[in-house]
Amino acid sequence: MNTSIKSVKNRLNPNRFFSPDPAIRNIASELYAEVKDLPILSPHGHTDPGWFAENNPFSDPANLLIIPDHYVFRMLYSQGIKLEDLGIERLDGQATETDPKKIWQLFARNYYLFAGTPVGAWFDHVFHEVFGIHDTLNEKSGPLFYDSIDAALKTTEFLPRNILDRFKIELISTTDNATHTLAHHQTIRDADWEGQVIPTFRPDSVTNLLHPEWKENLHELEALVAEELDSFATYISALEQRRKFFKEMGATATDHGVETPYTHELSSNEAERIFSSALRGDVSLEDAARFSGHMLMEMARMSTEDGLVMQIHPGSYRNHNDQVMKTFGADKGADIPIQTEYTRNLHALLNKHGNNLKFKLIIFTLDETNYAREMAPLAGHYPALKLGPAWWFNDSIDGMTRFRQLTTETASIYNTVGFNDDTRALLSIPARHDLSRRVDSNYLATLVATHRIELNTAREMGKALAYDLVKSAYNL
Amino acid sequence: MNTSIKSVKNRLNPNRFFSPDPAIRNIASELYAEVKDLPILSPHGHTDPGWFAENNPFSDPANLLIIPDHYVFRMLYSQGIKLEDLGIERLDGQATETDPKKIWQLFARNYYLFAGTPVGAWFDHVFHEVFGIHDTLNEKSGPLFYDSIDAALKTTEFLPRNILDRFKIELISTTDNATHTLAHHQTIRDADWEGQVIPTFRPDSVTNLLHPEWKENLHELEALVAEELDSFATYISALEQRRKFFKEMGATATDHGVETPYTHELSSNEAERIFSSALRGDVSLEDAARFSGHMLMEMARMSTEDGLVMQIHPGSYRNHNDQVMKTFGADKGADIPIQTEYTRNLHALLNKHGNNLKFKLIIFTLDETNYAREMAPLAGHYPALKLGPAWWFNDSIDGMTRFRQLTTETASIYNTVGFNDDTRALLSIPARHDLSRRVDSNYLATLVATHRIELNTAREMGKALAYDLVKSAYNL
Amino acid sequence: MNTSIKSVKNRLNPNRFFSPDPAIRNIASELYAEVKDLPILSPHGHTDPGWFAENNPFSDPANLLIIPDHYVFRMLYSQGIKLEDLGIERLDGQATETDPKKIWQLFARNYYLFAGTPVGAWFDHVFHEVFGIHDTLNEKSGPLFYDSIDAALKTTEFLPRNILDRFKIELISTTDNATHTLAHHQTIRDADWEGQVIPTFRPDSVTNLLHPEWKENLHELEALVAEELDSFATYISALEQRRKFFKEMGATATDHGVETPYTHELSSNEAERIFSSALRGDVSLEDAARFSGHMLMEMARMSTEDGLVMQIHPGSYRNHNDQVMKTFGADKGADIPIQTEYTRNLHALLNKHGNNLKFKLIIFTLDETNYAREMAPLAGHYPALKLGPAWWFNDSIDGMTRFRQLTTETASIYNTVGFNDDTRALLSIPARHDLSRRVDSNYLATLVATHRIELNTAREMGKALAYDLVKSAYNL
Repeated sequence: MNTSIKSVKNRLNPNRFFSPDPAIRNIASELYAEVKDLPILSPHGHTDPGWFAENNPFSDPANLLIIPDHYVFRMLYSQGIKLEDLGIERLDGQATETDPKKIWQLFARNYYLFAGTPVGAWFDHVFHEVFGIHDTLNEKSGPLFYDSIDAALKTTEFLPRNILDRFKIELISTTDNATHTLAHHQTIRDADWEGQVIPTFRPDSVTNLLHPEWKENLHELEALVAEELDSFATYISALEQRRKFFKEMGATATDHGVETPYTHELSSNEAERIFSSALRGDVSLEDAARFSGHMLMEMARMSTEDGLVMQIHPGSYRNHNDQVMKTFGADKGADIPIQTEYTRNLHALLNKHGNNLKFKLIIFTLDETNYAREMAPLAGHYPALKLGPAWWFNDSIDGMTRFRQLTTETASIYNTVGFNDDTRALLSIPARHDLSRRVDSNYLATLVATHRIELNTAREMGKALAYDLVKSAYNL
Repeated sequence: MNTSIKSVKNRLNPNRFFSPDPAIRNIASELYAEVKDLPILSPHGHTDPGWFAENNPFSDPANLLIIPDHYVFRMLYSQGIKLEDLGIERLDGQATETDPKKIWQLFARNYYLFAGTPVGAWFDHVFHEVFGIHDTLNEKSGPLFYDSIDAALKTTEFLPRNILDRFKIELISTTDNATHTLAHHQTIRDADWEGQVIPTFRPDSVTNLLHPEWKENLHELEALVAEELDSFATYISALEQRRKFFKEMGATATDHGVETPYTHELSSNEAERIFSSALRGDVSLEDAARFSGHMLMEMARMSTEDGLVMQIHPGSYRNHNDQVMKTFGADKGADIPIQTEYTRNLHALLNKHGNNLKFKLIIFTLDETNYAREMAPLAGHYPALKLGPAWWFNDSIDGMTRFRQLTTETASIYNTVGFNDDTRALLSIPARHDLSRRVDSNYLATLVATHRIELNTAREMGKALAYDLVKSAYNL
Repeated sequence: MNTSIKSVKNRLNPNRFFSPDPAIRNIASELYAEVKDLPILSPHGHTDPGWFAENNPFSDPANLLIIPDHYVFRMLYSQGIKLEDLGIERLDGQATETDPKKIWQLFARNYYLFAGTPVGAWFDHVFHEVFGIHDTLNEKSGPLFYDSIDAALKTTEFLPRNILDRFKIELISTTDNATHTLAHHQTIRDADWEGQVIPTFRPDSVTNLLHPEWKENLHELEALVAEELDSFATYISALEQRRKFFKEMGATATDHGVETPYTHELSSNEAERIFSSALRGDVSLEDAARFSGHMLMEMARMSTEDGLVMQIHPGSYRNHNDQVMKTFGADKGADIPIQTEYTRNLHALLNKHGNNLKFKLIIFTLDETNYAREMAPLAGHYPALKLGPAWWFNDSIDGMTRFRQLTTETASIYNTVGFNDDTRALLSIPARHDLSRRVDSNYLATLVATHRIELNTAREMGKALAYDLVKSAYNL
């Protein structure tokens, strides 16, 4: 690694993200010391299982750190930088930038945009802690950063499996379509490697009747279960089979991305009728919404039977920018949150299964107005319900702090499930967990410093948040 | 009292809930010193007037502190503890735990769940300040806590009237159905005791046409006014008579629990038509909502005439958990907030009566998004409108702080009404007022320490919040 | 000026509005020192261009500081003070208080109501920094304040143009109806004075079909363009001509006050049909809303052509108090915020123009729930979109802090546009900019003190917020 750009002047401060008030900072630092080296449990993420199956080196800094990460390029796009210049592939095959050094340099020149953002905090951690580069990224230092990182990526230390081991990731979960063969997961299980990489069952592509490729996805499902899915009953049975398969492959959870968390049980006739209309390709918007509500009920019912933990991630208006969608496809930084409602929407599901001690439902939100108003009161009552951590845009220092401030007093930390990194940015995983552990330590330290809880209590709570609650909530 | 479990090590910190920053803490401490011993005015609560009428000793710790308090047992329930094991009575009469020591011990074992919650803060105050137990409640100390508290409850010091006196509760208001005879209040008035216990007029059970026992309640009302209530006009007149009676019995306020604060004036024909449909038992959901909106208008009109202060507590989805409702009944910790709207909903009422200086309307919310957006601007304009304090789930350290931060800059503290404890948990009343006085002192201290107001101004504001505003807002 | 009421004891603290924690305060103070003397750019405000055209002295303290300012008198009204007693003119011509000394004294007696509010902070700045009065305003000191201010207003130093120069206001924008002749602006341009006072194009009165005087306003528009506006096409062309004229007169921006930011493109037939119905005076509420959505589309399209920056200020329920509206007219402190939605409402506009680098759209809100949920994610993606500063009720210390805390992590400060004072209260302009610079300095200092950004980065960000971003966002 090129040592010429190392410098002590910008090393990360050991007390970063803690209150500067010594009465809080000192306690935060003490609490953090007890959790910072705990192994990482990553029960909800989006890394590619192929990385760990094939264990090939990553190609270069731009292709690893920028091109696949919509958290990064959306900000650059918002400032007028073309996605083509960042190497994002066009669906029409027209040329886009392919020189990773040029892409990196464009990023370096605009890195100041990430000042005060979580992406900036994660990158700083990656540069300093993962690559040992103690400098500030900017136009001038860009090439040296590139060379250092590129050189590191070519070492065995940076092979995907070695990265997991080095990061002390005890377990990581990927997110996989219901129709996925999980071939990579099989390869990993067969390999002579201790790492735990498990799948998560995500059936949206076959349960969302408005998915543009729903019919093709259904055909894939038919092929996998070797049965014609011409009725709602066979369809449900196919999903049950797939859950069984995922569970055998190590899955402990399912995940459901829906526009709203609306739940409602349909009569079998009604479910059958809507399913048939979808098969014919003429489902109405309203029927698709009702079907989605019913499928959440079905998934909850299956969870009570097979024990898979159910996760709901609602409230994103996907692909808000038609032009970006048409040119570059989905997941290009144009998913925008919408107002979300839980009290009425989850009524049917919680009434049917919320008192069932064998069932676990973890809900997330992009709409923070629900933390104190709906989510904490619901989780502070229903035994089955737990709150997922601050998600996506709110997975940040201030965002996580708000989550704790707005949920703990009503739901206690014990109805929450610790941290999810929710990322495909492999190298940022320790950065994200470290940030979360720091923020939680600082939150607990504030409770101690204001004499709301005792230090020993905070110690136990800190460990619960960093490890124990994750393990128990996700049945790991 | 068993002194063996007393210990100095965990005495409550005198600076608890204040910022640890000395620049704020010292001022907060000074401001708090000026208000901490002011008498308690409790203008909105849910204690049982029978306690003060009969003045019998409370039976035991579990029956006083746990079984009646849904704030407490909902949290235990959320962690998988059965309500039966907590001694909550089943409607079907099936056996539930009756041994108060076992119930207490189950609570003690799970007391860690309340760390960082207001319930935990209130209990700590009760244990330390009311019972003089300076230890931490847990499985081990549970029995000693039980014995100490149980012994104390058997002393005359803990007779209900003595508790009020000891707590320096200058006045306490109960909340009473419109059809209540107020016999207990009469007993109290007739007694040789200085304590002031006044009723509040709450007509929901006869104004909510969807109340499951609306017809029975109406019959009770008929009996009380000795008149057949077969028309809207006679019904309104009966309510006016009841208000008159409540006022004679000391009431200064009414209270209205509604799903939304929708207000709208119906024509007499329309009101009559809906009332008739309710008498026939076939009122529609929509008509019931419109009737509710009209009854708020009627109640406001009556308030302009009889001077009773009007309170609206909207936005709770009551009895969200059907299974708990069916098994245990209402008020079992399953009331969940919903999004609430004030600007449009209160338009009719405020337009008709909001400029009337003889009218006072105090509004509450479970939806904090309204503090800065709708409630503070409304209260910062309409002379009749005042803001009730942070309510229910938000009656907490962070919740109260948010209330001040989100309302003061627009409405000033002078359009708010001081604190309500809103509780049936008698022993926690000083804990709640103390917590509120601490939080307000800390808020004001922050304004002083950031040079937004002067210390002398803060002193006056602190007294206003702790006492003067309550007295004037509720016409005490 | 009367020096007898000067006193050193209450001078404004140089560290006001900064955190009392020295770790933050010292950095805040350093950052503030670098921006406090930067010239003021005021790209969105409501001062009267006639002041600068005619350059006459202001009449007296009450007529300058109280009577025209609904921020001030709404608070007094909320406490039962009659608007008549504050000298607010009645539409029916009935007598109201005309003695400015009496009005001032009523204000002085109630000045304590503004403790902890932004109005209080601005007034304190005006008294101390503009008039050099180092005392506290109250009943006793009221007359001396009046005399000091009144004497000052009669000096040449307080002539409007001199005020702008003294305040180092490099540029100020007024807000002007589309039908305004801009005669005052022409006078200013012709004058021998360096001050820059530019208009902003605000077409609400001719684009809002529900405006009570829409027809009259349309006739004014006809007169200005000397053409009969009997079709949607001629109407659009007239608006284009007016924009051209405003641009020639120095305008760089347009402004649109709408109830919701709904955007949607109508067919020409549909637009024509609705326009005709409005000409006939029988437009429906729904059609008016659809027309409003279409006109935002048209305005955006024109902006892509003429380069005027587009501003949208949605979400105020104007004139909520019918009685006040009927007696005193619009803008009397009775505009109340309503819940607002951006993700779906702006979909059409952003899809058509949001990727256009020649277009700039600045959005504001009165509904803070949108900061993190919708606005920051939208601005963190679309190149054309920027976030206006905390607006109106939220233009306050805590309000601005929330704005930064809730937008920076997702959108970065670089998708925001610096400060707007948005005021007709001329003397408070430096107070408002100073307050904003202090709050932003304190926010950035917090990022530095928690080791999220480096001090040098904060320096650059501070200057960007105080000056550079305003200049670039508004094409100044």
